[in-house]
Amino acid sequence: MKPFNLLKTDGKARRGRLTLKHGVVETPIFMPVGTVGSVKTLTPSDLKDVNAQIILGNTYHLFLRPGMEVIEHFEGLHNFIKWDRPILTDSGGFQIFSLGKLNKIVEDGAHFASHLDGSKFVLTPELAVKIQETIGSDIHMVLDECTAFPCEEDVARKSMERSMRWAKRCRDAKVKPDLCQFGIVQGSMYPHLRRESAKALMEIGFEGYAIGGLSVGETKSHMHEITDVCCDVLPRDQPRYLMGVGTPLDIIEGVSRGVDMFDCVMPTRNGRNGTLFTSLGRVNIKNLAHRLDDSPLDPACACYTCKTFSRGYLRHLFLTGEITGLRLLSLHNIAYYLKLTEDIRDAIEAGTFADLLAYHRGLWDK
Amino acid sequence: MKPFNLLKTDGKARRGRLTLKHGVVETPIFMPVGTVGSVKTLTPSDLKDVNAQIILGNTYHLFLRPGMEVIEHFEGLHNFIKWDRPILTDSGGFQIFSLGKLNKIVEDGAHFASHLDGSKFVLTPELAVKIQETIGSDIHMVLDECTAFPCEEDVARKSMERSMRWAKRCRDAKVKPDLCQFGIVQGSMYPHLRRESAKALMEIGFEGYAIGGLSVGETKSHMHEITDVCCDVLPRDQPRYLMGVGTPLDIIEGVSRGVDMFDCVMPTRNGRNGTLFTSLGRVNIKNLAHRLDDSPLDPACACYTCKTFSRGYLRHLFLTGEITGLRLLSLHNIAYYLKLTEDIRDAIEAGTFADLLAYHRGLWDK
Repeated sequence: MKPFNLLKTDGKARRGRLTLKHGVVETPIFMPVGTVGSVKTLTPSDLKDVNAQIILGNTYHLFLRPGMEVIEHFEGLHNFIKWDRPILTDSGGFQIFSLGKLNKIVEDGAHFASHLDGSKFVLTPELAVKIQETIGSDIHMVLDECTAFPCEEDVARKSMERSMRWAKRCRDAKVKPDLCQFGIVQGSMYPHLRRESAKALMEIGFEGYAIGGLSVGETKSHMHEITDVCCDVLPRDQPRYLMGVGTPLDIIEGVSRGVDMFDCVMPTRNGRNGTLFTSLGRVNIKNLAHRLDDSPLDPACACYTCKTFSRGYLRHLFLTGEITGLRLLSLHNIAYYLKLTEDIRDAIEAGTFADLLAYHRGLWDK
Repeated sequence: MKPFNLLKTDGKARRGRLTLKHGVVETPIFMPVGTVGSVKTLTPSDLKDVNAQIILGNTYHLFLRPGMEVIEHFEGLHNFIKWDRPILTDSGGFQIFSLGKLNKIVEDGAHFASHLDGSKFVLTPELAVKIQETIGSDIHMVLDECTAFPCEEDVARKSMERSMRWAKRCRDAKVKPDLCQFGIVQGSMYPHLRRESAKALMEIGFEGYAIGGLSVGETKSHMHEITDVCCDVLPRDQPRYLMGVGTPLDIIEGVSRGVDMFDCVMPTRNGRNGTLFTSLGRVNIKNLAHRLDDSPLDPACACYTCKTFSRGYLRHLFLTGEITGLRLLSLHNIAYYLKLTEDIRDAIEAGTFADLLAYHRGLWDK
């Protein structure tokens, strides 16, 4: 299965198309995060209204709740959550390291205890694939080990090499031909380790390749350097996914380096915290300046929030803790991210990506 | 202004029509409560999807937040919250008694401190009308004193008599001819005080009459008795509003006694607590029985929640604390209440109200 078509390039920026079991995804694309089976505060109908093409689910969370018996009973996540477009799932590795009480990592897999009730599990590469194939995600990720930042080179190497052995075991465990599996490049901030990792994955062969272990506290220039290194090695005719990234500027910077896919909790989390991304830059809806403001949150945005309500009302909803406010703000941020990737696709097609990049560097560096 | 047309009766049940500044309301009707300028978790678009005709705002809450300067700047609540159908506001009295730190009630008005920051205010009948006319509600309520339950007869009488003097002052303070003002019958559980109160209000003359001070801890038979007493006295050709009531059964019982309008936080509050009203009776979505349940919450309901999702998924969303779940459950409960009043209107028109009442007594007494 080869899901990706590269349609056009503009510099290193790529306009592509992913053809997946549940539909077509135009790239570059942002994937809203639906951690536990819902993109927080939103419904499938909302997501379609703002043109979401693919959403992400977190295997760790879904494995714990509702659990595999429920997912199996409902014949997969799509039917359970009533989302009929593509889904990508991570392997659960990242959450084990960041949320779970990790007991130990051995060659076989990761021993961890649930952050909810302490119950103990062993997540092996084979189990990570089995869970994700049961979930039925259009794209699933190999189990990898995520090193902390900063990380000594010998630790980074050992961890990366284990991740590559796990990647091979994941590939061997894959049984469903209509679902895609992506490898994950590791190697911390060491360019030669990243290159080794990318080559090891390409030797195994996947339907796509992710860059993992970024957005973990490193500088932007580190992030850009490692992205460059990975994109230089990864195959031109397959999709590239920069995991857990990032701000609007991070996304367009990633595209400028050859990345096709992004996910991040930032739009929904920041929405719930009252920080909004708009065509006019960042807006803190709590600010007193918005108290008597009749204007929309973002005059360039076509989402329900911006087409209907004033900043004054959105501020009021936020300050009074109304759930409706969290919803409306989350909806706008997701709409902003999706419109950003649409603008990026249009710019690549028109050969004007450099202008768009310059515009966003100006907007967000303010 | 005479906003009410009585179209048909079936026993004491009444099918009517209210013609208000922002539109027509078919009665009997349930009014979702939008305390601080949003019906909790929902948007105006959601409310229209489930055929909400009129919503309620709480003057006490809106007076404190966003405050009258903001409401005035936005030229009224309708434009601030972007709801273009009718709005009814209470006078703020009930919240002062239940939420605020009440300092004292004197003949002039109620001295109270905000439950938010302790700032002190005096709410007079004149101010209550002025605030509500600034809010621009299609129907506003007179300021009244709410006695606790139970209440000695002499206390109930003194309080009722003061409320009637306040009602007269509210009527004298009313300046906007296109907005309706309702009087509120008080008198605790004493039928003769209720009759006196109703007659005093009718002598002043209002566009409608509410029954206040019920659903405060009295028995159902007390509630029914007092409703009967009030409806027997109140004018046949004007609307009757039973404030703060109640369960689906309370509503149809109220209609059977001649009530036209109802409001209650129960559908949204219970929705957020996981208790749902359905055509099959009460459902606790937390129950383990729903874990693998593919069926809709209510097979007879046409709301987005019931048309789209399974009980199993709704249970999962609720147990994981997802805001999307609170939204979907609130939406259904509001849809249920509005469909109930639609069924009631249809039954009165068809002359089959007695059957519908018997059906609901059977359903909810289980």
